Amino acid sequence: MAEALRPGSTIGILGGGQLGRMLALAAARLGLRSHIYCPDAESPAFDVAAARSVAGYDDPRALAAFAQSVDVVTYEFENVPVAAVEQLLPSVPVRPNARALAVSQDRRHEKAYLAELGIPTAAFAPFDDRPSLDRALGAIGLPAVLKTRRLGYDGKGQAVIRWADEAGAALEAMRGAPAILERRVRFTREISVIGVRGLDGRVATYDPVENVHRDGILATSTVPSRIADAVAEKACALATTLMTALDYVGVLGVELFVTGEGEEAELLVNEFAPRVHNSGHWTEDACAVSQFENHIRAIAGWPLGPTARHADAVMTNLIGAEVEGWRRLAAEPGARLHIYGKRQMRAGRKMGHVNRLAPLGYGARVRAERGPARTLALDHVLLAMPEGREAEARAFYEGLLGMPEIVKPPNLAKRGGCWFQSGASQVHLGVEKEFRPARKAHPALIVGDLAAISETLARGGHPVREDEPLPGFSRVYVDDPFGNRIELMQPDRERR
Amino acid sequence: MAEALRPGSTIGILGGGQLGRMLALAAARLGLRSHIYCPDAESPAFDVAAARSVAGYDDPRALAAFAQSVDVVTYEFENVPVAAVEQLLPSVPVRPNARALAVSQDRRHEKAYLAELGIPTAAFAPFDDRPSLDRALGAIGLPAVLKTRRLGYDGKGQAVIRWADEAGAALEAMRGAPAILERRVRFTREISVIGVRGLDGRVATYDPVENVHRDGILATSTVPSRIADAVAEKACALATTLMTALDYVGVLGVELFVTGEGEEAELLVNEFAPRVHNSGHWTEDACAVSQFENHIRAIAGWPLGPTARHADAVMTNLIGAEVEGWRRLAAEPGARLHIYGKRQMRAGRKMGHVNRLAPLGYGARVRAERGPARTLALDHVLLAMPEGREAEARAFYEGLLGMPEIVKPPNLAKRGGCWFQSGASQVHLGVEKEFRPARKAHPALIVGDLAAISETLARGGHPVREDEPLPGFSRVYVDDPFGNRIELMQPDRERR
Repeated sequence: MAEALRPGSTIGILGGGQLGRMLALAAARLGLRSHIYCPDAESPAFDVAAARSVAGYDDPRALAAFAQSVDVVTYEFENVPVAAVEQLLPSVPVRPNARALAVSQDRRHEKAYLAELGIPTAAFAPFDDRPSLDRALGAIGLPAVLKTRRLGYDGKGQAVIRWADEAGAALEAMRGAPAILERRVRFTREISVIGVRGLDGRVATYDPVENVHRDGILATSTVPSRIADAVAEKACALATTLMTALDYVGVLGVELFVTGEGEEAELLVNEFAPRVHNSGHWTEDACAVSQFENHIRAIAGWPLGPTARHADAVMTNLIGAEVEGWRRLAAEPGARLHIYGKRQMRAGRKMGHVNRLAPLGYGARVRAERGPARTLALDHVLLAMPEGREAEARAFYEGLLGMPEIVKPPNLAKRGGCWFQSGASQVHLGVEKEFRPARKAHPALIVGDLAAISETLARGGHPVREDEPLPGFSRVYVDDPFGNRIELMQPDRERR
Repeated sequence: MAEALRPGSTIGILGGGQLGRMLALAAARLGLRSHIYCPDAESPAFDVAAARSVAGYDDPRALAAFAQSVDVVTYEFENVPVAAVEQLLPSVPVRPNARALAVSQDRRHEKAYLAELGIPTAAFAPFDDRPSLDRALGAIGLPAVLKTRRLGYDGKGQAVIRWADEAGAALEAMRGAPAILERRVRFTREISVIGVRGLDGRVATYDPVENVHRDGILATSTVPSRIADAVAEKACALATTLMTALDYVGVLGVELFVTGEGEEAELLVNEFAPRVHNSGHWTEDACAVSQFENHIRAIAGWPLGPTARHADAVMTNLIGAEVEGWRRLAAEPGARLHIYGKRQMRAGRKMGHVNRLAPLGYGARVRAERGPARTLALDHVLLAMPEGREAEARAFYEGLLGMPEIVKPPNLAKRGGCWFQSGASQVHLGVEKEFRPARKAHPALIVGDLAAISETLARGGHPVREDEPLPGFSRVYVDDPFGNRIELMQPDRERR
């Protein structure tokens, strides 16, 4: 703890995107100042930082001044030139270290490094030209994928080879950039582990999350992921091995492919990022200490904070024009909205994200309950009911959900009404003396068949209206027989 | 919703202290920029804002430029000159409005305004000179307190009159500042309500909190407060009446005295602050949407966020040198640390705060359970136990806590061990194959007699060591018979 930076110290951050911005916000909470260094004058992180340098990563004078003005340097993206870090190093500690940066910047080195540590990856092979590519294809097999060694992200710099005669076109798509050939993994699901290692070598990991990509860009991260406990533990252990080998300080994101199911599932590391990671954004709302605060704690030499979560969570990225849904999202009681303050909206650009929370164990219960038959489940529906129709309403919702348990938490009991709980479903029926049907929508996250549950709800009620859904979600509005308007939202991946 | 400010808009904030800082952080999360206006160049809010104006509140040119650069103006302290707001108003909306500011700036107007609304306050009387003070004392009775009409905060500008012959000295202490005379209230406890009113007139309140002041400065805020539900509802209703009467937009803090106990308790409003309030800082960690975010939502014309809490909470201010405890607080797993980044530490200055959370209903359960006899209660102790001694450890802790219920949440069951729950007490015993006694402290918030519980724990263990406590807390370290070191912390107000 001797090296811990005191509050009032300055964290230097290379890169001014949303990750730098969220790091600066986390630092501020701990009384630490941020100095953002980024060539782009419109960087969103500048808006929340005490100091800014608008300069290139190859500007020795700006780098020297930056080094003098900060107490530690970190980075928010893995393509920071290693030369820049090496220039900073004599004057100021850089965490995570240059080695982590160098290894992660080059897919070939990254794969070789992981292999050396005994961490499994997809089969891969280097190549130099068309003849060596053909030989590599023979060794690796099909389908395979060409990936540029450097600067690939969000699916950019990749070309799939399904048949041998596609090799030439794939090579051309690389435009002469050095690349490696990888076996294309037929995965059951993609997961990632967010780990953190302190200056004192202590390591902690957040629970693995399950990721869904669309068009090569992360769409959703869901925790818990649908993997066996032993597999989750193994994934965390791989991240720990990697962080320890790299003598890493800070947060690291490891993306993995899961092949197979249950206890038999196997893990292949796809890649790692030496920084806070998009698939860790849920930690901001579902954990006492987020990945951002833990990264700041680690690089500042502070004790790590707890990584336990107090809720299940689904993080949904807002890509491009999806951020235009901010009004609706701000009005959704269970949604925690984060917008990055980027001045330009562009297709494919990450503009913000939304975290939706559910009680801890929700995901596991739902899975245990679903079985082969369709299960309908509503989460946290709060309804007002007219006096005198309580029994009727109760029977209706009991019938809908099946065998509910009635509980009365002390903070609700006083308001009258009841609270049903049935596996993943929670419905609170309040009784109001002066009843007016709730014409505003009561949002609910549902698991099961959206069409079926809305049909049942609407029996005797009003017709169902489908609204523009969020990406990855379907949504309908439906009026129940008592006049309450309910908004049902369902992650597409839960559709059956 | 037509008036809602889009993400990317700029919030102007008059005042650059910790409240402005936390407002700017909340705004950033929603993609809104902040422009801080403050005469003090070292204002902590500057460190997290996109734009800064260092200028006086009486500088017409700076105010005009500020008005041009922002989309809405708010303030973080109630002593902003009304003239400054009036200069801004033609160019930009100011929320909350100038009326709220004007009323709250003058105790005499404030009291009169509350009286007009039928909101009860302590008896008070204006006076002009010594003879009229003596007449006022005769009407109000003793003990009484002189309070300056303007610029009083944290107990400054007040003088108590216990006996008639102290009136002269008290008047002198006012140094000629206009003042009013108030009856000194013998209260059972002090509470406050944080309310918020949206641009559309919708109102929401957070649960009332119980406040403890030391040397005139807020020391702790605890939620839930020890008041009957009906009294809590009445307190929220008073805040709602006030916000509606003022046509208020934003967060407002109302401080109240509670006299008497239970359902019979009565409420007197002490004062209100037209801004986010120190006694609402717990909302940052115990609610999905904090007072800061709700203030920003309100003034930006966004829908209000939910004000429900997901946890009980104790907020403890870090005053002056108490912030030097940051290393220890950062290492306390249950403590959420906030440091304000002030460059100068001074005695009596608010430097940060800590929020400690407990499961929802904890406070109510503890109270129901305590009864006349001493109850020992540990909260969330996680212990590792040597294999083979599990039964012994279980029996020991069962004996300590009395009749526990054994529960196995799915996320803990997989790791072996067990989880005791007994009213307010939760103890998790993990069993580790390669057991090493935990020499690091396991923090636990205890309710009951600190000396007795540490004695029991240490039976057969190591001696108890008392550490420098946080203000309002006592703390001991104790080794249980299995070699685990446990840190016990107890709010002084829970001491019996």
